Amino acid sequence: MDNVRTHYRTHSCGELRMEHVGQTVTLAGFLENFREVGANLGFLVLRDFYGTTQVVAETEEMVKTIKALNKESTIAVTGVVRERDSKNPKLPTGDIEVVPQSIEVLGRCRHNELPFQINRSREADESQRLKYRYLDLRNPAVKNNIILRSQVVAALRAAMIDHGFMEITTPILTASSPEGARDYLVPSRKHPGKFYALPQAPQQFKQLLMASGFDKYFQIAPCFRDEDARGDRSPGEFYQLDMEMAFAGQEDVFAILEDVLPPIFAKFGTYNVASEAPFQRISYLEAMDKYGSDKPDLRIDLIVQDATQVLGGCGFGPFEGNTVKAVVVTGFEGTRKQIDKLCADVEVQAGEKAYWFRYDENGEIVGGIAKFVQPIKDAVVEALGLEKGCFVGLTAGKLLSAQKTAGVLRSKLGAFCPNHMDKERYAFCWIVDFPMYEIGEESGELEFCHNPFSMPNGGLEILKKAAAGEVDPLTITAFQYDLVCNGVELSSGAVRNHDPEIMIEAFQLVRLGEDDVKAKFPAMYNAFTYGAPPHAGIAPGVDRMVMLLAGEDSIREIIPFPMNKNAQDLMMGAPGFVTQAQLDELNIVCTKKEEDGE
Amino acid sequence: MDNVRTHYRTHSCGELRMEHVGQTVTLAGFLENFREVGANLGFLVLRDFYGTTQVVAETEEMVKTIKALNKESTIAVTGVVRERDSKNPKLPTGDIEVVPQSIEVLGRCRHNELPFQINRSREADESQRLKYRYLDLRNPAVKNNIILRSQVVAALRAAMIDHGFMEITTPILTASSPEGARDYLVPSRKHPGKFYALPQAPQQFKQLLMASGFDKYFQIAPCFRDEDARGDRSPGEFYQLDMEMAFAGQEDVFAILEDVLPPIFAKFGTYNVASEAPFQRISYLEAMDKYGSDKPDLRIDLIVQDATQVLGGCGFGPFEGNTVKAVVVTGFEGTRKQIDKLCADVEVQAGEKAYWFRYDENGEIVGGIAKFVQPIKDAVVEALGLEKGCFVGLTAGKLLSAQKTAGVLRSKLGAFCPNHMDKERYAFCWIVDFPMYEIGEESGELEFCHNPFSMPNGGLEILKKAAAGEVDPLTITAFQYDLVCNGVELSSGAVRNHDPEIMIEAFQLVRLGEDDVKAKFPAMYNAFTYGAPPHAGIAPGVDRMVMLLAGEDSIREIIPFPMNKNAQDLMMGAPGFVTQAQLDELNIVCTKKEEDGE
Repeated sequence: MDNVRTHYRTHSCGELRMEHVGQTVTLAGFLENFREVGANLGFLVLRDFYGTTQVVAETEEMVKTIKALNKESTIAVTGVVRERDSKNPKLPTGDIEVVPQSIEVLGRCRHNELPFQINRSREADESQRLKYRYLDLRNPAVKNNIILRSQVVAALRAAMIDHGFMEITTPILTASSPEGARDYLVPSRKHPGKFYALPQAPQQFKQLLMASGFDKYFQIAPCFRDEDARGDRSPGEFYQLDMEMAFAGQEDVFAILEDVLPPIFAKFGTYNVASEAPFQRISYLEAMDKYGSDKPDLRIDLIVQDATQVLGGCGFGPFEGNTVKAVVVTGFEGTRKQIDKLCADVEVQAGEKAYWFRYDENGEIVGGIAKFVQPIKDAVVEALGLEKGCFVGLTAGKLLSAQKTAGVLRSKLGAFCPNHMDKERYAFCWIVDFPMYEIGEESGELEFCHNPFSMPNGGLEILKKAAAGEVDPLTITAFQYDLVCNGVELSSGAVRNHDPEIMIEAFQLVRLGEDDVKAKFPAMYNAFTYGAPPHAGIAPGVDRMVMLLAGEDSIREIIPFPMNKNAQDLMMGAPGFVTQAQLDELNIVCTKKEEDGE
Repeated sequence: MDNVRTHYRTHSCGELRMEHVGQTVTLAGFLENFREVGANLGFLVLRDFYGTTQVVAETEEMVKTIKALNKESTIAVTGVVRERDSKNPKLPTGDIEVVPQSIEVLGRCRHNELPFQINRSREADESQRLKYRYLDLRNPAVKNNIILRSQVVAALRAAMIDHGFMEITTPILTASSPEGARDYLVPSRKHPGKFYALPQAPQQFKQLLMASGFDKYFQIAPCFRDEDARGDRSPGEFYQLDMEMAFAGQEDVFAILEDVLPPIFAKFGTYNVASEAPFQRISYLEAMDKYGSDKPDLRIDLIVQDATQVLGGCGFGPFEGNTVKAVVVTGFEGTRKQIDKLCADVEVQAGEKAYWFRYDENGEIVGGIAKFVQPIKDAVVEALGLEKGCFVGLTAGKLLSAQKTAGVLRSKLGAFCPNHMDKERYAFCWIVDFPMYEIGEESGELEFCHNPFSMPNGGLEILKKAAAGEVDPLTITAFQYDLVCNGVELSSGAVRNHDPEIMIEAFQLVRLGEDDVKAKFPAMYNAFTYGAPPHAGIAPGVDRMVMLLAGEDSIREIIPFPMNKNAQDLMMGAPGFVTQAQLDELNIVCTKKEEDGE
């Protein structure tokens, strides 16, 4: 540990060991608890950022002094370190205690009662926790997530710098963009009627940096989207490990993250194993086919098989004329009740039913839809490669629907069968070869599938062939990729389309032109007409990574001062009303006013 | 250098040396220039982030290929490394050249003419530079400042972490605060009529972190103030190395920065020498007295002396009844013309006249106001300790005015006399012991001098004595300090008043009460009632430090994408008009609309 000696202390509350016995020390911290044993004996737990130390009051006067103080007051204790009679092996300082000569009150807690018990704050009502976040954070279990976040961010920075990347901070007050989510707007005082916008991501700036001749850029970048909260999305602001490389392609980006992320995940995560480079690359179509998802959890060894040919005509109504998908689970040990629950869970999550049968230890087809399968048993056993004692989960519907339901089924089965899920690790993969175009559901015409500004695989040539009718545009893929870890999408990235000529050609296929390209991102388009390097990048979400590492389900657990789901900071009182003078200066008027207390 | 091999290249344009001669390499970069010598001979300069390399076209076809390209196109060149006939020792790659076998165009520049010549962009009109910032940044002289900034920030981070500090990012969407400068406001969509504000600094959050039990916090923090631009202040956003320590006092903060800053200044600065710890501590009163400034440039060895007693009654009108200050310069070699210019410069900057005389090599009082001094020559020589050949600059007025003018005079004299200014270094000092209270010029009553939330030296006790009339409140100093380097104030900091009781007492002296304290910073005040550690901190400006290190006078030179003085981003078109739908969703209406093009 670093030397923590300051004006108020000689050691931290996590520092003292047997070697300090006999020394006179001064500790400073929060009075966590005082257990009075008698008029001249009591045990005080003193807590600071680094740990806790037991302080033993052995005089009547000292017991009185301490009793007069409210819990959570800050105090400085000067005394002698003594070996404990009964040591506490669970506590790093559990071998010793401090016998105080003097206690100085540094910051008096004025309240007899706290809104919640510090060390059990996670059980308190969330709005209370957020309002008194400064008390909530005193709970080591809460604080440790924030420490983890800080350490992870520092490690990411160090690793990126180590790989030759330069951190460049891009503007936070910038222009509103027509794309993507809803912008936060900031009225301009000097330019009435005009607004800045907070960046949804530094996407344009990082591409402009590439056009500016920078080579390897990164930034722990604040991003702002005025969207409603979700479990893994905080309203307001969030952070990305934003990065971009010039004169680089997809594999160059992959190589960097495959080098940067696994050691950090293994070091700071709940699990200490992470995929080694290279991460598995799975095409979008293959992912949908084999895992029923474009964010497969590779910790699960189950694979989705196509069973349309062998089971489509088995006579079971829901299979009739549909695609049928099967997930075969060897060594299955679930009860009938567990299977029913599992299928019900799939239906809730996927909105579609799952079916099943078992190929039991005796080689019989039993349970679920067995009566439809029994007559074609040998064909099914062969087609799906069944072993005795296995379970077969089934889904049916149009291709995509059957796939997605099978994906949900696969996840539930993985979570249920420890022998099919090697849970204690971080399993990364890349999803690649996303289609560039699709037929729009509403329009029935060709449309961009994801990001129109990604580079098509095949470049100008393949677009021209598509325009000439020589290539089906639906077969064109984009150099676009997702980074997935344990079934969580950490980020999308792409090789960018840096060539105005290719952009225009790509837009023309969907009946748009140069003006449409320009209108979307004028600065970037202009920059690209002055010669730009080919470039590629990605921006894994920091919050999502830290959630994975901390094993937390709520994003608010890994943010120091989070807003609530209603986009309010209950501690600071944000958002709040402002003065008329402030609005006048900005030349704006509010047309509606929330009742206060709402 | 890091390995830069990517999809498009084997080496960077700054990498090739004699050892690579004979190798076939691929470089990728911007076509900086092509000098055609003949139909089958031409020299191409290829530039990337890392440097430039000469490429020699030796065939008619290659010359033609290159001639067809506009400058600033990006290309990949594959060819053989050859030793140059005439080496260029100024260029790191000056020993070699590349003879191309093939050239691939990666990003075509569509423009024959650029808005300015890349390598002379600093001479271009600033609005053109900012509009085409992506071209401006291709100029190595411009780019290098951004690299410097990134390196300095990374070094600051590394040093703070090394000193046991944890970086914690605090919210950017927060509450408007009644104190300080003008806030940027962000209308809330979900809470009509209410606004977030962008933080002017994370001051409250860092103090809340201390109340939350964090120990050593820092952050490279974005700060936002809606103020008009100045040379050293960009409109909009700027960055601070914000830090705070729990259970710590003034000297603890000093010790950290005295350890962190000098090595970084010496390593990255224009000068490679910086003050060693401990930095000189100068009380506010002493600084005004000896240097005529609370941000003295200690590279200048001149001292302001009081000459009121010896010269006040010399008969020179402006001295009559005023404080007279003197700056004595030994070994002075300026001409009469130079002295006049110097005095004129002082008057322009200070708004007050400077006077002078010389005590020449022959021991005569000559020049300026000599005729008033001559009669009392011996007394003056003795009082001011004059040596033959010296110059005496003088100022007069009320105390503060005479001091400040003398401070300006001292700076000008230092800049003029190389023997009195050891310019090539970074000289740090701390200004301490700022008065807590002053008599308000308008009110004529006792008021806070600077920050009402700093801890008074003497704490509760001295405030109570002042309230009881036992101590003059004007003699109370605050634990508040400025960090000054080379005459530039890098930051103010303070030991914070963390004790509600002391706060209320401090406010009562200026006829305010608990409600006033609460009203200013409710969250912080509430937090402090739950027990808070004594804490202290500071927040040196990152932009200002980088300006000092780069030796730049305009803040826009050290920001990647700066706004202009009019708070506009000319490249992105920010601020700009937004759609009616956006405003409707935010429940606001604009009462005034700037003409576009303004």
